[in-house]
Amino acid sequence: MRHQLSPSPAPTDLARRYMAERARMPVLAAPLSAEDCQVQSMPDASPVKWHLAHVTWFFETFVLARFEPGHAPFHPAYKMLFNSYYNVVGDKHPRARRGLVTRPGLDEVMAWRKNVDERMATLLVRHGAGEIAPELAALVELGLQHEQQHQELLLTDLKHLLWCNPLQPVYMPRWPLARVAAVPWQWVAQAGGVVQTGHDAAQDPQRFAFDNEAPRHASLLPPYALASRPVTHGEWADFIADGGYADPRWWLAAGFDWVQSQGISAPLYWQRDDERVAGRWQVFTLHGPAPLDSHTPVAHISLFEADAYARWKAANDEQARGARLPTETEWEHAAAPWQTAGLAAGNFVDSGALHPLPVTRAEPGLMQLYGDVWEWTASAYLPYPGYRPWAGAVGEYNGKFMIDQSVLRGGSCASPRSHVRASYRNFFPSAARWQFSGLRLARDSD
Amino acid sequence: MRHQLSPSPAPTDLARRYMAERARMPVLAAPLSAEDCQVQSMPDASPVKWHLAHVTWFFETFVLARFEPGHAPFHPAYKMLFNSYYNVVGDKHPRARRGLVTRPGLDEVMAWRKNVDERMATLLVRHGAGEIAPELAALVELGLQHEQQHQELLLTDLKHLLWCNPLQPVYMPRWPLARVAAVPWQWVAQAGGVVQTGHDAAQDPQRFAFDNEAPRHASLLPPYALASRPVTHGEWADFIADGGYADPRWWLAAGFDWVQSQGISAPLYWQRDDERVAGRWQVFTLHGPAPLDSHTPVAHISLFEADAYARWKAANDEQARGARLPTETEWEHAAAPWQTAGLAAGNFVDSGALHPLPVTRAEPGLMQLYGDVWEWTASAYLPYPGYRPWAGAVGEYNGKFMIDQSVLRGGSCASPRSHVRASYRNFFPSAARWQFSGLRLARDSD
Amino acid sequence: MRHQLSPSPAPTDLARRYMAERARMPVLAAPLSAEDCQVQSMPDASPVKWHLAHVTWFFETFVLARFEPGHAPFHPAYKMLFNSYYNVVGDKHPRARRGLVTRPGLDEVMAWRKNVDERMATLLVRHGAGEIAPELAALVELGLQHEQQHQELLLTDLKHLLWCNPLQPVYMPRWPLARVAAVPWQWVAQAGGVVQTGHDAAQDPQRFAFDNEAPRHASLLPPYALASRPVTHGEWADFIADGGYADPRWWLAAGFDWVQSQGISAPLYWQRDDERVAGRWQVFTLHGPAPLDSHTPVAHISLFEADAYARWKAANDEQARGARLPTETEWEHAAAPWQTAGLAAGNFVDSGALHPLPVTRAEPGLMQLYGDVWEWTASAYLPYPGYRPWAGAVGEYNGKFMIDQSVLRGGSCASPRSHVRASYRNFFPSAARWQFSGLRLARDSD
Amino acid sequence: MRHQLSPSPAPTDLARRYMAERARMPVLAAPLSAEDCQVQSMPDASPVKWHLAHVTWFFETFVLARFEPGHAPFHPAYKMLFNSYYNVVGDKHPRARRGLVTRPGLDEVMAWRKNVDERMATLLVRHGAGEIAPELAALVELGLQHEQQHQELLLTDLKHLLWCNPLQPVYMPRWPLARVAAVPWQWVAQAGGVVQTGHDAAQDPQRFAFDNEAPRHASLLPPYALASRPVTHGEWADFIADGGYADPRWWLAAGFDWVQSQGISAPLYWQRDDERVAGRWQVFTLHGPAPLDSHTPVAHISLFEADAYARWKAANDEQARGARLPTETEWEHAAAPWQTAGLAAGNFVDSGALHPLPVTRAEPGLMQLYGDVWEWTASAYLPYPGYRPWAGAVGEYNGKFMIDQSVLRGGSCASPRSHVRASYRNFFPSAARWQFSGLRLARDSD
Repeated sequence: MRHQLSPSPAPTDLARRYMAERARMPVLAAPLSAEDCQVQSMPDASPVKWHLAHVTWFFETFVLARFEPGHAPFHPAYKMLFNSYYNVVGDKHPRARRGLVTRPGLDEVMAWRKNVDERMATLLVRHGAGEIAPELAALVELGLQHEQQHQELLLTDLKHLLWCNPLQPVYMPRWPLARVAAVPWQWVAQAGGVVQTGHDAAQDPQRFAFDNEAPRHASLLPPYALASRPVTHGEWADFIADGGYADPRWWLAAGFDWVQSQGISAPLYWQRDDERVAGRWQVFTLHGPAPLDSHTPVAHISLFEADAYARWKAANDEQARGARLPTETEWEHAAAPWQTAGLAAGNFVDSGALHPLPVTRAEPGLMQLYGDVWEWTASAYLPYPGYRPWAGAVGEYNGKFMIDQSVLRGGSCASPRSHVRASYRNFFPSAARWQFSGLRLARDSD
Repeated sequence: MRHQLSPSPAPTDLARRYMAERARMPVLAAPLSAEDCQVQSMPDASPVKWHLAHVTWFFETFVLARFEPGHAPFHPAYKMLFNSYYNVVGDKHPRARRGLVTRPGLDEVMAWRKNVDERMATLLVRHGAGEIAPELAALVELGLQHEQQHQELLLTDLKHLLWCNPLQPVYMPRWPLARVAAVPWQWVAQAGGVVQTGHDAAQDPQRFAFDNEAPRHASLLPPYALASRPVTHGEWADFIADGGYADPRWWLAAGFDWVQSQGISAPLYWQRDDERVAGRWQVFTLHGPAPLDSHTPVAHISLFEADAYARWKAANDEQARGARLPTETEWEHAAAPWQTAGLAAGNFVDSGALHPLPVTRAEPGLMQLYGDVWEWTASAYLPYPGYRPWAGAVGEYNGKFMIDQSVLRGGSCASPRSHVRASYRNFFPSAARWQFSGLRLARDSD
Repeated sequence: MRHQLSPSPAPTDLARRYMAERARMPVLAAPLSAEDCQVQSMPDASPVKWHLAHVTWFFETFVLARFEPGHAPFHPAYKMLFNSYYNVVGDKHPRARRGLVTRPGLDEVMAWRKNVDERMATLLVRHGAGEIAPELAALVELGLQHEQQHQELLLTDLKHLLWCNPLQPVYMPRWPLARVAAVPWQWVAQAGGVVQTGHDAAQDPQRFAFDNEAPRHASLLPPYALASRPVTHGEWADFIADGGYADPRWWLAAGFDWVQSQGISAPLYWQRDDERVAGRWQVFTLHGPAPLDSHTPVAHISLFEADAYARWKAANDEQARGARLPTETEWEHAAAPWQTAGLAAGNFVDSGALHPLPVTRAEPGLMQLYGDVWEWTASAYLPYPGYRPWAGAVGEYNGKFMIDQSVLRGGSCASPRSHVRASYRNFFPSAARWQFSGLRLARDSD
Repeated sequence: MRHQLSPSPAPTDLARRYMAERARMPVLAAPLSAEDCQVQSMPDASPVKWHLAHVTWFFETFVLARFEPGHAPFHPAYKMLFNSYYNVVGDKHPRARRGLVTRPGLDEVMAWRKNVDERMATLLVRHGAGEIAPELAALVELGLQHEQQHQELLLTDLKHLLWCNPLQPVYMPRWPLARVAAVPWQWVAQAGGVVQTGHDAAQDPQRFAFDNEAPRHASLLPPYALASRPVTHGEWADFIADGGYADPRWWLAAGFDWVQSQGISAPLYWQRDDERVAGRWQVFTLHGPAPLDSHTPVAHISLFEADAYARWKAANDEQARGARLPTETEWEHAAAPWQTAGLAAGNFVDSGALHPLPVTRAEPGLMQLYGDVWEWTASAYLPYPGYRPWAGAVGEYNGKFMIDQSVLRGGSCASPRSHVRASYRNFFPSAARWQFSGLRLARDSD
């Protein structure tokens, strides 16, 4: 038997939260033309217009179709056209062909959003504050969390699209990135022992969590240490300069095959100046091309690259002896105490930077756990002991992807602040790197 | 040494012709959204926006850059961005990635068109009617012919894109296609002998021709016959009903491999009604899906299919004994006398039908040679004896594609009437079928 | 710093063991022609001749080159030609092109084997029984374990090759497979708690283990249960008959993509009789095609299939409620107590059956843990906490493959009995199924 | 209606000819091991064992099955297993999987050959000399011509296989290639006019010809000239040294795509010495690797390369102004008068050189038209006017390949001398180069 969605943490203001969250994606799309919103730059990415439509589909399909009296869909074909991967719902337009659907146009999709928002408001208001059925509230909450995930994907998919244009267009005018020096990193010891990780709805009823974060469960952890901050662009440039991408000693076999067959020699979005002088790197950002800032956390690396870096670092830096990627349990156990402060201080999409920022003030303990870059872990994305997918169609949300992917933790500069938490599990294949993905070193305690 | 472009046939009204021809593509694009104009549905096709830009690039690159005093390009990157395949001009944006360029947007491309048109008008008017240098006039004429080719490609590429949308959108509201019966076909005998084909500028100085149509040259033709009209949709449905797509006896080996590996069982754009009842075919048109009209010439077939049909027909219809595809020399020799009447009566893009139409009145001789559908020939696209490409960058226009393609003749319902002539050589690979391509049978004389 | 290989458990009889183990692969190859030994049927497989050569390369490269006085290789090119994946050793012939190397021929490879065996004997005898250096003894032991792994691969690669031949040749004449009924399965409860798994050289010094089995480490296991025996061919036929391969509810998303894109509808080597009557399955075996025996453990399934079966079974059989794949820790913890009895009774390559056999006598507890079929687990193949690869070139043996693969346990009917143990970790990608791979169900305790 | 095979030119000694021709292929295979004969190095090539079997299949399928009293096949599965591409005959084993069939082994195939040869001898002797039915004689003759074609393919497929082995094995011990200087080339003028080419059975009843060589037909040829000898390895090295492979001006568009996507920078089998000094080329031959001999005709080039060379030569050598590839009509018209002398003097497989040889004595007129290297022409492989395939199953022999290939003329150092004639049409796709394919320049007369 499958588990139920968590009851919504705060049903009273659900309508208000709905409107606020739904208003964000149009803001993200505002600087874009209809053409920018149309195109799919690779099969893994989706058009901005598709994101705008699919999250609307979610509310119409999973909420309105069930709870709206006398429900009729806005357009009968949208159920199929904007279904991402829910087999229970019926047919799907193939993922790799999302960019071919020029009609409905952006205007029609925005009209659909407006229509659905009005119907949702009617539904939520009619039900009234305290009277909202728990199941309805839970599905609305899920829809808003889903909306937030696609806010981030909208930005990372868009970044990839703009980068495919030889003109390398600017999404947002350049922000004044302070050229400040990153603080040195150090090991922060963690005690280990029998630790509890994962989300427990009973213990933390006010906080939403996906089914893949549950159940809360015990693990035995040997003592370990985490680096005080993520690896920076400058440290990564050292890896490149030392020939790291060409030396099979540092790489998993599948990673070295990938590097060689794809001709990989730097993170995604790194490009040399014309002069091809060593060290003169540029990176493409949502603010256009910019000189590489050594002091910001490195982003857009694959798990293969993160893993190779750790091995290279362990062999070449006495301080980093024994360095490796952390497991997700290690990460969460160490990060949980920093949740409140870390979320408050973190560089999320809310900051508008849309790029990882440097740590500018050394503090004791673990810095930048939340925001800036998703941190690759050494853990495969698999179910926790006792995991049960949600009941119903939303049971396809997470569980069926639990194979051949790895877990990332902590959120990024493209994640909404309110979306991230210590127990949050993001996941991507080993070669994916169009997300703001970076790494933090770990090691066993001596 | 390469040959020179033909001098323009009528320099006096060149500016007027320029404006009239350049006005057509925006009209074709008028019913389309910015999104419709953005997307590339397959590597062989190009976005509508790209067509609008590339033909403009042609005038800026080959005319203005050379003849405009104090020339400066509208945008420095467009020279690379909208170069199709001219290596002499410099770098090119890769063909398969044309659809990823969302900026410049449609508005900017239209502004570029306007700017180039104004500068071209200035150039042509300043030079004055009779004073236009022959080389300038020849390049302008070439640019207008090039513009016409892309008018047709715009429509066929667009048709493919709209068909990729499960909603199967309508480009033009449906025209009232008269349901009239096609006339029966018959053999029309041709004498053969030593015949002259190809374009001769000296003989026909008023008519533009591409370099690949020259020189006019002699061939020995045995007596032969051509069918009085092209094969129809209804006749093609008989081929399908007889299992033609599954019987290797009718197919070239490469054609049967193609049919089997691609799962081909009907022309492009044919689709069954839901009931899957034999004979209940629909075809997708630029007016949306429509029931198959048996009496219209069949379109959207590959050379492989045309060739297989002829072999099947020869073996299964006593009237068609010996049927095969015509050679391009046979076609041109027979079609040349019908040029004036055929062009006048033909169904070209100018008719607005955007679909092949039936012959409704039996006439003696050869019908529908011009317009409706391009007719596949049995001839490989190779240089004529004595062929020389044009001198200069435009020497890359035609010659370098003379391998592994086959010739089609006669123009289609998407071709501009003024663009077609008896000596015109169109060419596509054997498996291409997104053009309005059909066939007419031929045979040796008894 | 990397760990050292374990000292050989019993150096006194190492020469005798060497000769005995090295004699087995030629016996396996004896029924084969030079052609059978030459061909590589897919990139994942290797030619029999390559197996014969590569294991010999192992001894020449890692033992003789280091310990033989005045060492000279048998042939200077073999170092590159038969290197599998050791970057430290130098260049490698590409894996997918192993089948193209027709020279050296089988005779030359067998001559090389003989030569290396003589030199190894000289080396081991000269050193004398108790005088063999621990490091030499450890490398010889590793070479023999490596030899055993390739004995199994020789058989599974060969099975795939023979199956590619439309004549479906017989490797061994058919054995008299008793048609006996399998016993019903039942859940066998396991207590869980803080459990120790993995190999501990200090605790079990007489038993060889690979570096990936260490270190022994503690885990917290909730109570669970394992099925008393693996799933059978007959139970799998029920899954097929119920439409299991066509129903996305049972499948991981990547698994359903694989099923659909590859047209998978049954395990590898299953084929229908001509009549295509439901239930009339044949399976291809090393004894040629044979009717499916319902009572034998199912083999040649991918992880995707094993996982889907468990989900289907859990939803359709009250007894199997909660069924899933076991983790490797669950498997090992439950299997360790049965090691001595299970290895003694198991169906390994030594039995000559070369096919999984049915359980014919119900016994209390867990049956067929060892031998018959490798059992897929729910665990990704990742390093244990504190894992260190061996020092030196053999450090590439296991560690660099620890990504995007899953663990299988228990050995198969193609494994040498002396090669298998409770802590043994086999690993393959999720779609691999040319090994004798099956499954055993697990579930959480109520 | 399809045409009949030609009657055999000399039925009286058909049995003797059969035995002599059938004895050759085993001689070619004699230096090879069973493994050498087993492997298929690429989809375009076939195993030597397959060649040995397929030509035997031809006699059993097309002759014995029809004319042998009480016919029973040697093995019932061979009809499918060794069918190349005859759909009328029934199922076929897929071409790309020919190398996977290890059984029957080489010994069994040789036993089959012996069996078929004995039955053929019985058939031909029983019928008696003058009594052999014309249809039987014609099919035997076709089978022997077919055997000869596969003698050549056996050698070119084998050469490719051996080259795939990093050890680059020797098929035949090196012959003493005289290092003599090639004579300079010059233009040899040809008159043109109405010329007859193609085979006419009535005119030349003693000479076998394939259906694709008929009918003899008239063409109009403008005056032209051919180079007196083929292009040499040394002349080709000049093209490379001048950057020919990197300059798009010389290449057909499809050819330049091929060069760039495949990383082509020299003919097949050319390899640099270790020093990578310009000009220090080696070529792989059937005698093993050898230093490039500048004076021998260049071989192993594609049509794309041949065409590019001609364009480069025309632009860079005053003597070669107007150089291009000849059409097949030009070639045959010029070559026909030299047939007797050219065949007698030519370097065919009979010489044992297995490599093109230099012209060492300047003679007036056209040299090396026959043998040494197949000469690419500018002609697509298409049916002659009035072409009819043979009646019956052998109608699939040639006709169905008449698309997207180009014609080569004159035979090579791997062709049997008695197999070649002026009207012989060989054909391969534009990128094929594992045959001994070279070129001779042509031009229009001034």
